[in-house]
Amino acid sequence: MALSSARAATPASTPSLVHHVFFWLKRPGEQADRNQLIAGLRTLRAIPVIRDLQIGVPAPTEERSVVDASYDVSELMYFDNAADQKAYQDHPIHQAFVKQCEHLWQKVVVYDMQVVPGR
Amino acid sequence: MALSSARAATPASTPSLVHHVFFWLKRPGEQADRNQLIAGLRTLRAIPVIRDLQIGVPAPTEERSVVDASYDVSELMYFDNAADQKAYQDHPIHQAFVKQCEHLWQKVVVYDMQVVPGR
Repeated sequence: MALSSARAATPASTPSLVHHVFFWLKRPGEQADRNQLIAGLRTLRAIPVIRDLQIGVPAPTEERSVVDASYDVSELMYFDNAADQKAYQDHPIHQAFVKQCEHLWQKVVVYDMQVVPGR
Repeated sequence: MALSSARAATPASTPSLVHHVFFWLKRPGEQADRNQLIAGLRTLRAIPVIRDLQIGVPAPTEERSVVDASYDVSELMYFDNAADQKAYQDHPIHQAFVKQCEHLWQKVVVYDMQVVPGR
């Protein structure tokens, strides 16, 4: 994984802020909408403050009551800090993505996680 | 489907399954409980199928209606595949963690994300 190798090379600058976003489509299971959203998310890679970006869909893990597999698409990003996350939020490429794709989703849930240092 | 063929091309060594768990404590804001849960999560690092593990707390990002910052602790893990995630689930160290720490939490939400390959 790019993140791991980058981390190994530059241990002092490990990105410590995880921004994980889950999207529920207005038309769940509509492949074209899912692909359009994924294509839109890929454009975000051009935003320099993003240290790593992964795009995903629900994984084929065991069904359990605590597992929420109802979302359609998710994005997982790493930033160095909250200021960079804010810069991303306000970046024109991110704003353009929202404008172009927001008609696709009915719900978005965001979790921002500060990594606790140490082993 | 384009997704499947792209997935087949992914290098075998890239962990492609993200397991993100959010915990809400029975006693939110109770520092000792939070630290006990974090200490318990650290024990999971000994489980070999885990490719990467990060432990976190809500980040100091902007308050927005879509951001859920109500959880107390989260764990973000990478696995190679769903079989490894299942092996982790059943691993004695994970089982011991659940037994020792489950009295601390009132709610757990899990998202399992399969990384979509490609840029």
